[in-house]
Amino acid sequence: MTVSYTLDVSTSSFRSFANVLFRWRASLWKSVHKELLLWLFFYMILSCVYRFTLSDWQKEIYEDAVVFAYKYTDFIPLTFMLGFFVSIVVNRWWDMFLHIGWIDNTSLYIATYIEGTDDEGRMIRRNIVRYMSMVQAMIFRDISVTIRRRFPTLDALEAAGFMSAAEKQTLLDVDSPNAKYWVPMKWAFFLVKKARQEGRIKSDQAVQDLMDRLREFRSGLGKLSCYDSVPIPLVYTQVVFLTVRCYFVICLIGRQYINTTRDLDVNSSVDYYVPIMTIIQFIFYVGWMKVAEALLNPFGEDDDDFEVGLTIVDDSISKQPPLVKDVFWAETNPEPLYSAE
Amino acid sequence: MTVSYTLDVSTSSFRSFANVLFRWRASLWKSVHKELLLWLFFYMILSCVYRFTLSDWQKEIYEDAVVFAYKYTDFIPLTFMLGFFVSIVVNRWWDMFLHIGWIDNTSLYIATYIEGTDDEGRMIRRNIVRYMSMVQAMIFRDISVTIRRRFPTLDALEAAGFMSAAEKQTLLDVDSPNAKYWVPMKWAFFLVKKARQEGRIKSDQAVQDLMDRLREFRSGLGKLSCYDSVPIPLVYTQVVFLTVRCYFVICLIGRQYINTTRDLDVNSSVDYYVPIMTIIQFIFYVGWMKVAEALLNPFGEDDDDFEVGLTIVDDSISKQPPLVKDVFWAETNPEPLYSAE
Amino acid sequence: MTVSYTLDVSTSSFRSFANVLFRWRASLWKSVHKELLLWLFFYMILSCVYRFTLSDWQKEIYEDAVVFAYKYTDFIPLTFMLGFFVSIVVNRWWDMFLHIGWIDNTSLYIATYIEGTDDEGRMIRRNIVRYMSMVQAMIFRDISVTIRRRFPTLDALEAAGFMSAAEKQTLLDVDSPNAKYWVPMKWAFFLVKKARQEGRIKSDQAVQDLMDRLREFRSGLGKLSCYDSVPIPLVYTQVVFLTVRCYFVICLIGRQYINTTRDLDVNSSVDYYVPIMTIIQFIFYVGWMKVAEALLNPFGEDDDDFEVGLTIVDDSISKQPPLVKDVFWAETNPEPLYSAE
Amino acid sequence: MTVSYTLDVSTSSFRSFANVLFRWRASLWKSVHKELLLWLFFYMILSCVYRFTLSDWQKEIYEDAVVFAYKYTDFIPLTFMLGFFVSIVVNRWWDMFLHIGWIDNTSLYIATYIEGTDDEGRMIRRNIVRYMSMVQAMIFRDISVTIRRRFPTLDALEAAGFMSAAEKQTLLDVDSPNAKYWVPMKWAFFLVKKARQEGRIKSDQAVQDLMDRLREFRSGLGKLSCYDSVPIPLVYTQVVFLTVRCYFVICLIGRQYINTTRDLDVNSSVDYYVPIMTIIQFIFYVGWMKVAEALLNPFGEDDDDFEVGLTIVDDSISKQPPLVKDVFWAETNPEPLYSAE
Amino acid sequence: MTVSYTLDVSTSSFRSFANVLFRWRASLWKSVHKELLLWLFFYMILSCVYRFTLSDWQKEIYEDAVVFAYKYTDFIPLTFMLGFFVSIVVNRWWDMFLHIGWIDNTSLYIATYIEGTDDEGRMIRRNIVRYMSMVQAMIFRDISVTIRRRFPTLDALEAAGFMSAAEKQTLLDVDSPNAKYWVPMKWAFFLVKKARQEGRIKSDQAVQDLMDRLREFRSGLGKLSCYDSVPIPLVYTQVVFLTVRCYFVICLIGRQYINTTRDLDVNSSVDYYVPIMTIIQFIFYVGWMKVAEALLNPFGEDDDDFEVGLTIVDDSISKQPPLVKDVFWAETNPEPLYSAE
Repeated sequence: MTVSYTLDVSTSSFRSFANVLFRWRASLWKSVHKELLLWLFFYMILSCVYRFTLSDWQKEIYEDAVVFAYKYTDFIPLTFMLGFFVSIVVNRWWDMFLHIGWIDNTSLYIATYIEGTDDEGRMIRRNIVRYMSMVQAMIFRDISVTIRRRFPTLDALEAAGFMSAAEKQTLLDVDSPNAKYWVPMKWAFFLVKKARQEGRIKSDQAVQDLMDRLREFRSGLGKLSCYDSVPIPLVYTQVVFLTVRCYFVICLIGRQYINTTRDLDVNSSVDYYVPIMTIIQFIFYVGWMKVAEALLNPFGEDDDDFEVGLTIVDDSISKQPPLVKDVFWAETNPEPLYSAE
Repeated sequence: MTVSYTLDVSTSSFRSFANVLFRWRASLWKSVHKELLLWLFFYMILSCVYRFTLSDWQKEIYEDAVVFAYKYTDFIPLTFMLGFFVSIVVNRWWDMFLHIGWIDNTSLYIATYIEGTDDEGRMIRRNIVRYMSMVQAMIFRDISVTIRRRFPTLDALEAAGFMSAAEKQTLLDVDSPNAKYWVPMKWAFFLVKKARQEGRIKSDQAVQDLMDRLREFRSGLGKLSCYDSVPIPLVYTQVVFLTVRCYFVICLIGRQYINTTRDLDVNSSVDYYVPIMTIIQFIFYVGWMKVAEALLNPFGEDDDDFEVGLTIVDDSISKQPPLVKDVFWAETNPEPLYSAE
Repeated sequence: MTVSYTLDVSTSSFRSFANVLFRWRASLWKSVHKELLLWLFFYMILSCVYRFTLSDWQKEIYEDAVVFAYKYTDFIPLTFMLGFFVSIVVNRWWDMFLHIGWIDNTSLYIATYIEGTDDEGRMIRRNIVRYMSMVQAMIFRDISVTIRRRFPTLDALEAAGFMSAAEKQTLLDVDSPNAKYWVPMKWAFFLVKKARQEGRIKSDQAVQDLMDRLREFRSGLGKLSCYDSVPIPLVYTQVVFLTVRCYFVICLIGRQYINTTRDLDVNSSVDYYVPIMTIIQFIFYVGWMKVAEALLNPFGEDDDDFEVGLTIVDDSISKQPPLVKDVFWAETNPEPLYSAE
Repeated sequence: MTVSYTLDVSTSSFRSFANVLFRWRASLWKSVHKELLLWLFFYMILSCVYRFTLSDWQKEIYEDAVVFAYKYTDFIPLTFMLGFFVSIVVNRWWDMFLHIGWIDNTSLYIATYIEGTDDEGRMIRRNIVRYMSMVQAMIFRDISVTIRRRFPTLDALEAAGFMSAAEKQTLLDVDSPNAKYWVPMKWAFFLVKKARQEGRIKSDQAVQDLMDRLREFRSGLGKLSCYDSVPIPLVYTQVVFLTVRCYFVICLIGRQYINTTRDLDVNSSVDYYVPIMTIIQFIFYVGWMKVAEALLNPFGEDDDDFEVGLTIVDDSISKQPPLVKDVFWAETNPEPLYSAE
Repeated sequence: MTVSYTLDVSTSSFRSFANVLFRWRASLWKSVHKELLLWLFFYMILSCVYRFTLSDWQKEIYEDAVVFAYKYTDFIPLTFMLGFFVSIVVNRWWDMFLHIGWIDNTSLYIATYIEGTDDEGRMIRRNIVRYMSMVQAMIFRDISVTIRRRFPTLDALEAAGFMSAAEKQTLLDVDSPNAKYWVPMKWAFFLVKKARQEGRIKSDQAVQDLMDRLREFRSGLGKLSCYDSVPIPLVYTQVVFLTVRCYFVICLIGRQYINTTRDLDVNSSVDYYVPIMTIIQFIFYVGWMKVAEALLNPFGEDDDDFEVGLTIVDDSISKQPPLVKDVFWAETNPEPLYSAE
């Protein structure tokens, strides 16, 4: 689930900084700790090998390698690559979020424009909303690992109430090699037409508006699907991820303490045993990269990934009915409203 | 409250620079001074310890640490991280501001399209506007600490005139586990429909326009709610905030003056007691970071945060009525207008 | 007035470069020369003090300070801060320009849709346009120092023909603590409604279009008002402006020539008297900063600020009438058009 | 075909990193390996020449050249140029993808709005969709090498079922020196008009909506055509591509190991035979550049280029008919839908 | 004319790189060669002066100057300034291109919505399109040097068939101090109104759509006009262009070879006569700057500037008629279309 920390930063003070810093879920610490421990482990091994096992001439070779690696870490342009790459990834991530399929506007329009308090009218309204959820569920199944696991087959969608058995069959009967996202959408469009023909929608302008909302909803999901099928070019991702890892593999050697009397451009003249500075660097760079890694597929299973399940099942199914019910069943306008003027 | 200094920069001159610089509210000085004093305090303690208490061999260790820290501050890529991060935060902040819920356009449409000078007509107009304010207040309560404190419960909203007792009850009766922002919005939509049915709205195009304006208003608030619930990934924020603090913690040691005859790559050969340059750096970097910190949650309590309270209570309630009144009560078109041609 | 040099850059050649370079109005030279002379003045004083007045031991202290300052200018990240800050400022500036309130589209719609060649019809058309200008003038008065000086009071607006005495009175009678930009806008909306009621507008679609244009105009001005009341956070501006000034204050000392036999990391081994390189740096960095300074408030009095006065008074009042006149007074369609087929 | 790796990055873990890294299609390795091998080949030749063939005074010259080249690689600002250039290219690439011509929305509108289950009605619906595909095919022929090869002539389009012989002739009869993309589009527009005249479209609002969708589709393709005919200025592309190549040509010399007793600012004091660090650099920089190179013309034949063929032939022709059929042939509303409430 | 090289980059291979590199028109080489030769000329003169004419003590002064200049080139932040500036310029350039005035959409709408095959109907359709071209031509005359030269007066526009003598007179009779772009636009709007009044346009929705298209067209051209009259602030352009030139003027001295036994921080210890590295730098930086210089005024006469002439004269006049003709003259729907199903 997306982790919100907005309340913690409502003022910029010491406390809010601490609140932001000392968290575990979706935090820097959680995403970095494993790789950091691994890195430290190898660093320590190398360090011990140098101190306790190498002979003098071996040490010289080792020391030359350290100096060599130390000098060359400058050649790797970590900062910029990460800066540009994270910018692109964050933009994509946010745009995806905005097109996650917001059902509310359309629902309000449906409730307002499609009239009739009989079962037929109620069914039309509920079904359009359900069809929208159905498209959303179908698309999310293809995008998100979590949703796919939850609804492995169309039967699972049926069991969850997204579609009836008859609808599922109709869907399967459609003979098309491509994705069938458009099928429930067409059903929704035709229900709008039907409602207009039966006079439940009073004006052609209302039809226009409803079609617009449905199209908007569909286009958003379509864009989501685009983002999923055409990711950031693989080369770019590989270059960035590899650069960061390479940098720290080289640091494994280049940041070792060497105890020598030769005139070398050494890392440090004092032996601190623990490479504090490099650990700090590790946390920063790898943490920054983790931002990109986590957001690359926001429908995955990271802490910062969107809770699409919530949007689908609970929201649309359980939220929509009251929207329709408490006006159409009672058939009265909420008159108490006016008494409080 | 947002601090405006636009008038001060109407020309680019010495004076305007001074005007911008020497302010307290929302200023660099205000946001930086506490942390700077704290930093200086620790710096001075370290400095005194070195000068007055350490023995010679302790001094050597200390000096090595200083040189070590001094060299390594280069490793921390402050500038870029801040540059990219502040860009993202500033963009989000501005986009949030643009969706803060501007009620004016919709009000003008309501006043124009919904006719009738009787109490009923007036109530419809006023209620739609009030419902919009109600949604705004409800959303701001969830987003902003200040508003939450002002309206801790729905009763507070009722007391402030945002909703009647009956409306509050209806709201509470809606059985939904999710946020109920859509409920007053639906009331507003149904009032539009009612006005059309009663002939107070003359054309279907007018309904279309009104629905559009209401939807626009709602979508803006929805986007605001998104920005609140899905902030910039925590890792990113942590990385940036931590980097800056780490840098200056390291500077605490690395920028100390050391008085030694050993050949070290020292900070300065003269003892200035006060680390002027590092103070300047501190002001710049921490100031820059404070930009991001303050804007991360623009609905918080910083000086630069939006004065949402103003927008809600005073604006909408007190501003709207005259808009409706001075035409619909008098029932005459402002004829003097024409005499001045 | 905005200075256009587009013609000078129609080809990229030596001449066009020279044309761009050797200008005074709105130029680099004009914006930089004062601060540069001031800086040189202080530089020269310091230089003379060192050369002619200091004793030897004073010179040593001075020289240490120079070396210290020289080394530390690297610590100040001018380039990036300016890069990111100027980007944000330029974007805001351009967006403001696009929302400066273009009256043409709306005028064309009004002329097309609102029919009738009698005085009444003509008055309706002219008044709507005048109301739009009135809102524009009112908003610009609050935003721009120049316009405020031109129209210090509402009476000045009346004298300039933006409003009649009666209208001014009506405006003053509106009892609202907030800005009253919406009042003339409401008048315009009601004139559209009136024209429709009197049959001067033939269709509801035309009303829809007219309302849309008026709203567009109003929203643009509203956005302008937003940009004015919520500027770039003060901290950011302060940080950037201060960084640049600090840099060159430090350069005042750090770039001094020192004539010493001690082994110091000096600026230059030759005495050039005039710090050519630093002057070049000064021109670049301060020039770059001036871009941001001038654009921060584009409605100020810099050379590059918008000539809003022109837009308001001359354009709308003098340009609009013929648009209405030469068709509605003559009441004939321009038939010669067809003879030239 | 675009290579999707989204599923591999659904969590950010070691495994997902490995999944992303060890791929061949569209990967860093595939795009870089040829040039890297070539570079290594020349490097090795130079290395051997130095070690085995040069006399002492030749070695000195060679060594001076190495030192010279080594020092000067710093002068080439690879990182930034690549950063800015790749940003621009990635943005263009994504915007092109979004305007690739999505036929679904329009199809759904056509199916909903244009009624009639007779052959005439069906033909109208199918033909509009076919005309859209025809425009798409014609534009892609001009943009994409692959599609051009598949449909070298209009006859090929006819054979593929995009146009009838009569239509092809009509197209050829249009006497225009410019591209004729608008012709099929006009046919589609006129079919909409015809459908309205025959009463198959029930309201003018529906016509408005259909025209809007068709225009949207056309504008998207028009933008695509723009992107194709006005690429990123050639100078920019040349500068970037050349910079990267130059850098590594200089590295060919500058990163050679030299074995000398002279006091030179050498690359490394140890002979590693293989220039590991430079290879890493090569992979990063050239890989980054390849991102830009591959995306410059996304309709080319790289692995990451769009599979436009798929969009055209299979999708629109085979997908659309069932959309129309299973409702219009059966002429019943899908009633089973309601039984599952 | 814009130079397209898209086909050359359809794959990313050695060949495509060569294709992109070895071109003359609009290329790096063409835009850089003149300034490079000039620079080399001065460099060589300086070099000869040093080698052949200076006495020993003059050489020492010269050498000090070289070292001084060499050290200080680092102070000039070329890369960033260029990076940020080119980004802004490229964005403006592309946005201008998208608003160059695309007449196709509007033409299709006109052909579809305005009915009638008599001369009157045909004239209405053709005239609206001609009026649009007229506005476009008038605006381009003010923006582009090329177009201005082609149509120096309104008479030239008349001769080219853009306007009739009567229309020109009407245009001249309009008494306005401002640009008269709106006049032909108003004529077009009134022709739409006239067509509706005469029943040639069947619905008010069609009028709405036509007005929308005309407005869109006009707004695009208006934006173009904005871009022309409010360029990037002069200071910014000056700063960037000057920085680059200054850098290489300093390099003229700083990159000279000096042959000295003094311990100076010299450029190179070997004399290569030709400053290869600096030439490469020159090509990169000046080339990059040329990107900005050429795009600053895309309506100028550079190779990469838009071919606006083409858009105006040939396109609209010669392309449009057949669009109208082959349907309205024949008065039959293209029936063969249906036979090929």
